[in-house]
Amino acid sequence: MNQIAFLGLSGSFSFIAAQKYFGNKARFLGTNSTLEIIEKVENGLCNFGILPIENSLTGSVYETYDLLNLSKLSINGEIILHIHHQLLGKRDGKIKLCYSHPQALAQCRRFFNNNPDIQSVLTKDTSSAAKIITQFKRKDAAAIAGKMVAKIYGLKILKSDIEDNPHNFTRFVVLAKIPSNKGNKISLLFSVDHKPGSLFSALYPYSRLGFNLTKIESRPVFGTPWEYVFFLDFEFNGNQNNLKMLFAQMKKHVNYLKILGKYNKGKSYET
Amino acid sequence: MNQIAFLGLSGSFSFIAAQKYFGNKARFLGTNSTLEIIEKVENGLCNFGILPIENSLTGSVYETYDLLNLSKLSINGEIILHIHHQLLGKRDGKIKLCYSHPQALAQCRRFFNNNPDIQSVLTKDTSSAAKIITQFKRKDAAAIAGKMVAKIYGLKILKSDIEDNPHNFTRFVVLAKIPSNKGNKISLLFSVDHKPGSLFSALYPYSRLGFNLTKIESRPVFGTPWEYVFFLDFEFNGNQNNLKMLFAQMKKHVNYLKILGKYNKGKSYET
Repeated sequence: MNQIAFLGLSGSFSFIAAQKYFGNKARFLGTNSTLEIIEKVENGLCNFGILPIENSLTGSVYETYDLLNLSKLSINGEIILHIHHQLLGKRDGKIKLCYSHPQALAQCRRFFNNNPDIQSVLTKDTSSAAKIITQFKRKDAAAIAGKMVAKIYGLKILKSDIEDNPHNFTRFVVLAKIPSNKGNKISLLFSVDHKPGSLFSALYPYSRLGFNLTKIESRPVFGTPWEYVFFLDFEFNGNQNNLKMLFAQMKKHVNYLKILGKYNKGKSYET
Repeated sequence: MNQIAFLGLSGSFSFIAAQKYFGNKARFLGTNSTLEIIEKVENGLCNFGILPIENSLTGSVYETYDLLNLSKLSINGEIILHIHHQLLGKRDGKIKLCYSHPQALAQCRRFFNNNPDIQSVLTKDTSSAAKIITQFKRKDAAAIAGKMVAKIYGLKILKSDIEDNPHNFTRFVVLAKIPSNKGNKISLLFSVDHKPGSLFSALYPYSRLGFNLTKIESRPVFGTPWEYVFFLDFEFNGNQNNLKMLFAQMKKHVNYLKILGKYNKGKSYET
């Protein structure tokens, strides 16, 4: 039976993503950090790990991009969740403290702008936030998490769907030790020289060969200010020859190229 | 006398950036949020605003990019600070709570990985974090901020230079109502159709005309998942004809193009 590492406790959005992707035929192991997920898969304690990589309101999850750069794991799949955030508490009344994951807080910016007296406290995941407030004596603490978390901890939904915009989707990637050779989507990273035309030259083969870039993301190179690595996602129709040509042409114009994984475009699920 | 809006209270890194950029011949006005800075300049209460836009460890400050997209203000200048973070407290002893700005917390990720029992609480800026802990009775609370903040609030440096890497630089942009027409650097944003080759075509004129792209950043379009606007910075040698040609060629391949500002490449200062 596959063992899957996810971020946080049962009920977290990562947990829901893992369940939707792997179904009932797997065991799910909660972790304290995204780094721990990588370690659990790298040392073989888990077969797969699942990490949030992008949100439609707040953008890329940079911690995940940086871990993909450092780790040797491959992206083997992706899944998308339609995220709704609930303000959870023990009972109605004035709220002074609100616990949640930084991403959840960022997706509810308007709520905090409208309630400037509520202080935000960071937690490892949304489910841990709910657990923390159930253990408190004070009643002015709330958590931001999903409906499943409210059920697990018996908390009341004080305000529902407090995300800034209803089109709030998070994309998760599934990581494994062994690369998959199937799929219609590829993720990679590369770096180029800091000179005119270098980024353009690296992207030219995509245009020439008709590949559809779906995402480009730059991340700073740790320790060398204002230098970047670029992360690319592109879609791919199955023509292996074109793919070989693409990589051969790209390699002429980059300093460094790493294929992060080939996988099938993910489906979207409600939460 | 120019009035400059900055984020937070005296001593914050935004305050230092404003002082270094404008010198003593200006008045500095602290604000509660980056949105408030934009409003103060748009409604004429301040002549300029200063906003952090990028950090060499954590990457782009997305709130600033999103505000640049929505606002009509122009980028008129930039300045870079070499950032060092100090753990500040009333006296030595066990720390349970640590207050700071989300960016400062993100730049000290290793410190929190090594001290998993310390809970992070978000503040509007680093200087406010120090102010909060001076008002507390409890002694197990700390703040992350710079040396100037330690002096202002009479706090002890419990641990110095806790940033993840010594090459920790933050780039700030100076915003004003009226665009500057001088400078050797331009920032703009654009969007393209979601089809093969579209991003490439928009970038082609830069390569053909020899402009050096120094930064490309994608941000999600609010409310339309997996569509992006792209932010570009490029350097520019003063040839106005080439610049006109660049924009004319670019406009053929983009849906939307907005010049964010022309300004001089910023200098770097110690903190």
